[in-house]
Amino acid sequence: MSFSAAVYGLGNIGRFAVEALEAAPDARCLGVIRRRQSLGAPSLDQRGLPAYASLDELVAAQGQPDVVLLCTPSRQVPDAAAGLLGRGFNTVDSFDIHDRIPETLARLDQAARQGGAVAVTAAGWDPGTDSVLRALFEAMVPAGTTFTNFGRGRSMGHSVAVRALPGVADATAITIPVGGGRHSRLVYVVLERGARFDDVRAAIAADPYFSHDPLEVREVGAAELPFVADASHGVLLERTGASGLTANQHLSFDMRINNPALTAQVLVAVARAAVRRKARGEAGAFTLLDIAPVELLPGERSTHIARLV
Amino acid sequence: MSFSAAVYGLGNIGRFAVEALEAAPDARCLGVIRRRQSLGAPSLDQRGLPAYASLDELVAAQGQPDVVLLCTPSRQVPDAAAGLLGRGFNTVDSFDIHDRIPETLARLDQAARQGGAVAVTAAGWDPGTDSVLRALFEAMVPAGTTFTNFGRGRSMGHSVAVRALPGVADATAITIPVGGGRHSRLVYVVLERGARFDDVRAAIAADPYFSHDPLEVREVGAAELPFVADASHGVLLERTGASGLTANQHLSFDMRINNPALTAQVLVAVARAAVRRKARGEAGAFTLLDIAPVELLPGERSTHIARLV
Repeated sequence: MSFSAAVYGLGNIGRFAVEALEAAPDARCLGVIRRRQSLGAPSLDQRGLPAYASLDELVAAQGQPDVVLLCTPSRQVPDAAAGLLGRGFNTVDSFDIHDRIPETLARLDQAARQGGAVAVTAAGWDPGTDSVLRALFEAMVPAGTTFTNFGRGRSMGHSVAVRALPGVADATAITIPVGGGRHSRLVYVVLERGARFDDVRAAIAADPYFSHDPLEVREVGAAELPFVADASHGVLLERTGASGLTANQHLSFDMRINNPALTAQVLVAVARAAVRRKARGEAGAFTLLDIAPVELLPGERSTHIARLV
Repeated sequence: MSFSAAVYGLGNIGRFAVEALEAAPDARCLGVIRRRQSLGAPSLDQRGLPAYASLDELVAAQGQPDVVLLCTPSRQVPDAAAGLLGRGFNTVDSFDIHDRIPETLARLDQAARQGGAVAVTAAGWDPGTDSVLRALFEAMVPAGTTFTNFGRGRSMGHSVAVRALPGVADATAITIPVGGGRHSRLVYVVLERGARFDDVRAAIAADPYFSHDPLEVREVGAAELPFVADASHGVLLERTGASGLTANQHLSFDMRINNPALTAQVLVAVARAAVRRKARGEAGAFTLLDIAPVELLPGERSTHIARLV
C-alpha cells in the first residue's frame, strides 16, 4: 500500500512533515496548504512542492489526498480536523493539550463517522508514542508508579503561551526535569518596547502553564534568542512496580531527539495507519493507543513479524 | 469485561501466571493443568487452586475458561496450541523460538480460524514486548540501527538447551551483553556421573544456541547451582537513526526484571486482548504487533485515553 498526503500548515512541524513524507518509501506529498501571504517563501520552494492557500485549491490541482497531516498550532486543530473529517478527508494531528484530548477525540469521532473518514489525534511523541509506552509499561507492570520526565529541551506549548502574554515580543521556554516527573521552567523573553520585565515575569508566573513549577525568567535581546531556542528535546519515562505479585520490576525509556522532526515522523506513521483503517472500511477517531504497532510501519505485516517479533 | 483463565503447565512461568491472574482485577483463574504425577505438589496448594491432569477434566469441573495460558516448554507450544484452538479454546503463549515464529503463527492462525478461536503467540518479553518496542522505534526513527542487548541474566532457552546435552545433569546459562546486540555466554554445568567436562564443553560449544558467541563453561556441584540460577534478567534496546531527514535521534529502553514474572504478566495482558477479540467476533492468530496497546489493559478505553494519552 502507498498513500498520498497533504501537509496543512508549514510551521515547525509542517516543514519536517514534508521531509518525513519524502523519506517514507510508501508516501507521496501532493503539496502544502499555507497562509496565502506566505506562498512562495523560500523555505517551501527548497523542496519543490506546490503550495496552495486552501485544501480545495490543492484538491483541484492535485486530486484528493488519502490523508491530511494537520500541522497547524494545536489550538486550531479541533476545528480544522472536524471540518475536514466531515467532508470525508482522513486527518492526523499531534494535538497536545492533554486535558482537552478526550473531548477532542469525541468531537472528531463524531465528525469522522459522519464523513466516513478516519482521524488519528494526539499523535506526536507526548501525547503520542510516550502514551503507547505508558500503556505498555502498565501492561507489563500493572502495579507501580510511572514518571514522565521531560527535557532538557524547548517546550513549544510553553513557548507559545509566553508569546501570547502582553509585553512579550518573543520567547522560548526550556523544560528542565527535576525528578519524579516534576520540572522547572527557564524562560527567555524578548520584551516589547515599553514593557516592564517585572510585569512580564509576574504574568508568566501566574499563567496556568507555569504556575505549578519552579520558574526562572531571563530577559534577552532579539538577536540572542536564536542561540537558546534550538529543537533538542528528550524524555525519561520510568516505571517501577510489580508484575503479578513480584515487585522490583524496573522499566525505563530514554530518548534524545529533534522535537519537531520526531513529531512529524509520528504523523507520517499514523497517516499510514489511518489510510489502512479507511481501506478496511472503518470510520472514526483514534489515538495511538488504538493502533496495532505493525500498522505504523510501511510494507507487509508478515515481513515485520519475521523481522521484529 | 472480566475473564476466566486456565493455566496449562506449572513450571517457571505457570507459577507466576497463577499469581498474575490473582493480581489482575478482571481475571479469575479456574485452575491449573499439570502432569498427573505432579498433582498435589505443595507449590500448587500454596495458592489453593484446583489442579487437573487435562483441560477436559478442568472443563468438566469448572466450566470452559475464556482463555488458556500455555505455560509448557516452548517446543510443546505449537502442538498444544493448535490442538486447543481447533477445539475452540482461545490460547496465549510465550513461544520463544524466534526463527519458527512465522510458521507457528501461520499454523495457529489456520487452527484458530477452524475452531473459531483467537490465539496470541510469541507474547512474552522477547519475543513480545521487546518486539513492540522495536516496531515503535522503527515507526519513530525509520532509518537507523537497533540493537537488542540481553542480560545480564539467565536465559531459559539456553539453559534448557544445555540440559538436553549428554553428560549434563543440570545447567544454567547466563547471557552477558558485550555491546552492539552481541553476547557472551557463561554456562554452569553439573555433570552426570562418569561424564567428562571437556566432552560436555565441546558439545555446548557446538550447539547452535552457543556456536556463534564467546563461551565460558564452569563445572559446579549440584548444591552450588541454585546460587547462580536466579531469575534476574534485563534488556537494553537501543536505536539511533533518522526521523525523516533528521539524523541523531536516540531511543533506548532499559529494563531490569524478574524474567518469568514479566513473561507471565504479559501472558495475562494478551489473554485479556484475546478474549476481547473473540467477543468482537474475530478469529485467528496474532502477535503483540497486531494488538492495540489499550486492549492490553483492564477496564475502559476512555479511562486509559484520559489517563495515558
